[in-house]
Amino acid sequence: MALRKMAAKAVKTSKKAARKPTSTATGKPVRKVVAVAKRKAVPKKRTKAAAQPHPTQIVKSWLRRFDKSLKACDAEAAANLFGAESYWRDLVSFTWNIKTVEGREQIADLLKATLESVKPSNWQVQGEASKGGGLVEAWISFETEMARGYGHLRLKDGKAWTLLTTMTELKGHEEPSGTRRNMGADHGAHANRKNWLERRKEEEARLGYDEQPYVMIVGGGQGGLGLGARLRRLGVPTIIVEMNERPGDSWRKRYKSLSLHDPVWYDHMPYLPFPDHWPVFSPKDKIGDWLEMYAKVMELNYWGSTECKHASYDEDKKEWTVEVVRNGEPVTLRPKHLVLATGQASFANMPSYPGMEIFKGEQQHSSQHTGPDAYAGKKVIVIGSNNSSHDICGALYEAGADVTMVQRSSTHVVKSNTLMDIGLSALYSEKAIKNGIDHHKADLIFASLPYKVLPAVQVPLYEQMKKKDEDFYKRLEKAGFMLDWGDDGSGLFMKYLRRGSGYYIDVGASELVADGKVKLKSGVSVKEIKEHSVVFSDRSELAADLIVYATGYSSMNGWAAKLISQEVADKVGKVWGLGSGTTKDPGPWEGELRNMWKPTQQEALWFHGGNLHQSRHYSQFLSLQLKARMEGIKTPVYGMTPAYHLS
Amino acid sequence: MALRKMAAKAVKTSKKAARKPTSTATGKPVRKVVAVAKRKAVPKKRTKAAAQPHPTQIVKSWLRRFDKSLKACDAEAAANLFGAESYWRDLVSFTWNIKTVEGREQIADLLKATLESVKPSNWQVQGEASKGGGLVEAWISFETEMARGYGHLRLKDGKAWTLLTTMTELKGHEEPSGTRRNMGADHGAHANRKNWLERRKEEEARLGYDEQPYVMIVGGGQGGLGLGARLRRLGVPTIIVEMNERPGDSWRKRYKSLSLHDPVWYDHMPYLPFPDHWPVFSPKDKIGDWLEMYAKVMELNYWGSTECKHASYDEDKKEWTVEVVRNGEPVTLRPKHLVLATGQASFANMPSYPGMEIFKGEQQHSSQHTGPDAYAGKKVIVIGSNNSSHDICGALYEAGADVTMVQRSSTHVVKSNTLMDIGLSALYSEKAIKNGIDHHKADLIFASLPYKVLPAVQVPLYEQMKKKDEDFYKRLEKAGFMLDWGDDGSGLFMKYLRRGSGYYIDVGASELVADGKVKLKSGVSVKEIKEHSVVFSDRSELAADLIVYATGYSSMNGWAAKLISQEVADKVGKVWGLGSGTTKDPGPWEGELRNMWKPTQQEALWFHGGNLHQSRHYSQFLSLQLKARMEGIKTPVYGMTPAYHLS
Repeated sequence: MALRKMAAKAVKTSKKAARKPTSTATGKPVRKVVAVAKRKAVPKKRTKAAAQPHPTQIVKSWLRRFDKSLKACDAEAAANLFGAESYWRDLVSFTWNIKTVEGREQIADLLKATLESVKPSNWQVQGEASKGGGLVEAWISFETEMARGYGHLRLKDGKAWTLLTTMTELKGHEEPSGTRRNMGADHGAHANRKNWLERRKEEEARLGYDEQPYVMIVGGGQGGLGLGARLRRLGVPTIIVEMNERPGDSWRKRYKSLSLHDPVWYDHMPYLPFPDHWPVFSPKDKIGDWLEMYAKVMELNYWGSTECKHASYDEDKKEWTVEVVRNGEPVTLRPKHLVLATGQASFANMPSYPGMEIFKGEQQHSSQHTGPDAYAGKKVIVIGSNNSSHDICGALYEAGADVTMVQRSSTHVVKSNTLMDIGLSALYSEKAIKNGIDHHKADLIFASLPYKVLPAVQVPLYEQMKKKDEDFYKRLEKAGFMLDWGDDGSGLFMKYLRRGSGYYIDVGASELVADGKVKLKSGVSVKEIKEHSVVFSDRSELAADLIVYATGYSSMNGWAAKLISQEVADKVGKVWGLGSGTTKDPGPWEGELRNMWKPTQQEALWFHGGNLHQSRHYSQFLSLQLKARMEGIKTPVYGMTPAYHLS
Repeated sequence: MALRKMAAKAVKTSKKAARKPTSTATGKPVRKVVAVAKRKAVPKKRTKAAAQPHPTQIVKSWLRRFDKSLKACDAEAAANLFGAESYWRDLVSFTWNIKTVEGREQIADLLKATLESVKPSNWQVQGEASKGGGLVEAWISFETEMARGYGHLRLKDGKAWTLLTTMTELKGHEEPSGTRRNMGADHGAHANRKNWLERRKEEEARLGYDEQPYVMIVGGGQGGLGLGARLRRLGVPTIIVEMNERPGDSWRKRYKSLSLHDPVWYDHMPYLPFPDHWPVFSPKDKIGDWLEMYAKVMELNYWGSTECKHASYDEDKKEWTVEVVRNGEPVTLRPKHLVLATGQASFANMPSYPGMEIFKGEQQHSSQHTGPDAYAGKKVIVIGSNNSSHDICGALYEAGADVTMVQRSSTHVVKSNTLMDIGLSALYSEKAIKNGIDHHKADLIFASLPYKVLPAVQVPLYEQMKKKDEDFYKRLEKAGFMLDWGDDGSGLFMKYLRRGSGYYIDVGASELVADGKVKLKSGVSVKEIKEHSVVFSDRSELAADLIVYATGYSSMNGWAAKLISQEVADKVGKVWGLGSGTTKDPGPWEGELRNMWKPTQQEALWFHGGNLHQSRHYSQFLSLQLKARMEGIKTPVYGMTPAYHLS
């Protein structure tokens, strides 16, 4: 009921906002989000007209009552400060987990389990609270026994609707930044002094051999590198292993025309944002170069050309034994923690069709496709109709290939510029920066909106997008392309969160499909492969020199199966998805992404990744969880969910 | 007279400030500088008590009168808005030069020469003006016909005391940053599309061969790289040539223990500041790595392992012919402009003593000294007593060498931490950042204080430093070390500006001298070298296995002599120095650093460099002068000074 109300309100507010067609990726009506950042400080004086307390006073009063009940260990009283529909999202600070609880009962349960060890205190408003759309909102800070925290609060009719609490740093283990930074030059005289380079080289020679890393990260893409940088600053000895030789190769080796589909303001790495002339959509090789230098200047222990062969956990020693082959040489690593940062677009999903083994032409998964240059004048069939397929089909067309896309089921398509403007610009854009929202703030605003609420506020956004590009969609459908907007009309980001697939951010290939330049067979599947052709379920047959299976990727616990064991992979279960009960995201409802950035059912095994924004933001919380364990800080995990699905 | 008054006032104010022993590198009493950044906006209402106009109103009124006289082309009227003692420092916007004029007459002359072509307008106060120490100060902006500008104004008794005008960008040729940034991904479909990497590789293959660069920079250290980055963003085709192989090698190849002596907040490169955990004093190899990645991610056309053999200017074609050898292969480049960014610590100054040719041990200039490791137990004599000497002596002592420093004349010594705290922290520190002064602002505050005024405000700072480290200096002098504080007590930065030498920023070696661990022969010079020893002017003799000549570097026009011709070097004259009439800085007074970052007497020949702050800030103005010429914008240079000294 509440959701429909919210959606209705959202629709109403966003219709008003339609003249300024910008909203957040969360779909939050412009006014709400912009309000958080943009509102000028409301003067503290009470106006004569209405004796309304200032929003900041309202929040302070709520925080005082919250603090009082927490100090009294009165979970029920604290929960009663929340509305009937309410959400508390905690990133590590209370739960040592990535966890959302819903409603008073779950909130009380969280508090009963955590209050005693967490000992929260010192709740403060940061800056001024703001008011609008029926909500009072504020940024807040707090402390726990072991840590400092920052968060966000939304009150509706005096009760909490959403509360976000995040851990920012561990007391006594703060990152050496700003005033805490290292001096560098060792002033004074020391006999037999070693300089920085010598110490670095010694570390590189020692770590993994004479000294074991505390953490080992499998995968040296942006996820592994960003997490590595966080851990380095926290003083956690870490090795990142990567199959490719150089950092950035996982981008370099992709198909020629690839650029990021997320705009630059969304994509910054931790600690080192791109300079302000960086292109909006980074070409793959430019990102490759950036990642290569990042690994270097952030002093990461990066083992390229290193393949992870096998890992097993020793329950007694509480450590992993990991066999790797580094530049052809076998090495055994014994980290305390193993992080799989192998990427979502990593474990290829290859279909199996009768006749594949007799096909005389070339066949490859999209991840093996290096580009169109060899296929001018050739017949190419691309199975699949989502992101990779479109990019590859577009490039093949440009290179003069005769290309057909085969679409079995519908795809959600949105134009890149439209998504950037309507979907992201309130939080990640030059305009956002002008409004005082840098990517740090944007990440937190985004994190403050529970996944449960997200679809309802996305829907009006996508209705805007549908209207804006009405003509485009008509032409696409006229060409036979099967479109969808997500099961519930909530669009791209929800599809991404629920299933990590099923969409295309259009950077030009859809025009080719609409114009018939990229041919399309839709509503069919592959029946069998013959020596020189593909036969479809409608009995039609097409000749092919190359078949590209743009058939996606599977759950990251496939890597756990491959590297560790099927048993561990099954114990951990499916990685990603919310449990929404929509296509490819079976319930029950998790409330958070399965197994991401938090403890899993396999002790000391973690998964890191996501898009550049998620990798950046959630590396903060994963690094704190690992650092805490290294320092022997107690980390009682609240609210782990069982593995309901194997993959 | 005025200077003594200012100095007296400065002394008075800084005695007050002595309790908070912090001042700027300019020596501006804390109150003044902090005031610029820190003062809260004074409410606009007039107080009942005094009918004093608000400082912002005062500035606005002054700007209105200034604008009026400028629009009326009334140079005298405009000059009369300045005090009898007054300074106008212009960085390019009016003069297409780096130029300071002093007093009403010179100011009127500047205006008469420039008003008609510059057409200044739209003078605005930026933010609120502030008041204190007898001054009203404000940040200002303005426009000219071709450009936009930013600056600073100090009024004393209603008249201008200092005015700074700087060019920020050329209209129509703004850098592609923020909202103007490149899209990156080329959306839409293009037959035979080339991706970013292909276009970059094509550019690298073409530039210098099929296509000539507009600018060629000799020297790929931080100066050349930073200027290169500015030019890249401005779309000026540029090649940077460097003798060493990799960017950063000029740092890597220095002696082992070298770190930067300027703290990190002072050292940022343009567009890409160091992350906030970067050590305060960067070890040489860390800087080397940073510069290497900088060259890469800023897409600079960097030719390493390239030696510049000869350059000559073709007056008719208005271009240079430069012979280089690139990786052993001769290449001829024909840039329109040649920039020497070879570094101040670059053209070694080797002395010539009788007997050098018969010495049986090792001899080297400090720039050739790679480190102390080979000299444990050996006898080393280091000639010279400034920065390089101290660093080298300290490292040799730590490695177990028997080292003697030979000091011929006095050295100015200041402890690194003391200099950082008292000299720099108000502008370049965490504290400054907290006060809202980032390095961009700090650069401009620094630039706003004329060199003429600088010594008088530095003196009290150094008196503070002398007092703070009184004991240290006593011990040093007791050991026989000859100390100075600059000719007029104005300390390190003035010595640096006047002569680029004669000081040591102590990071530990002075303790070794004070303790006698590094032996000292002071007040002598070298008389002759024998087979195994050095004979001094006091007839004493010391055995030596290694002699290091830490005898400094000479004027950068030595590079012009070497690469181009003695004639051109003489035409250009001495590079660096202010013409203060102090030791090694003969008059007449220039008011600016000779030949740096501005047109020289040799057409299309420029010098770039300075410390990391100067390289960063002045690369902005040099890049704009080059861009303007490339775009065919008229650049009438006002106020070039003749070359009074050859070197």
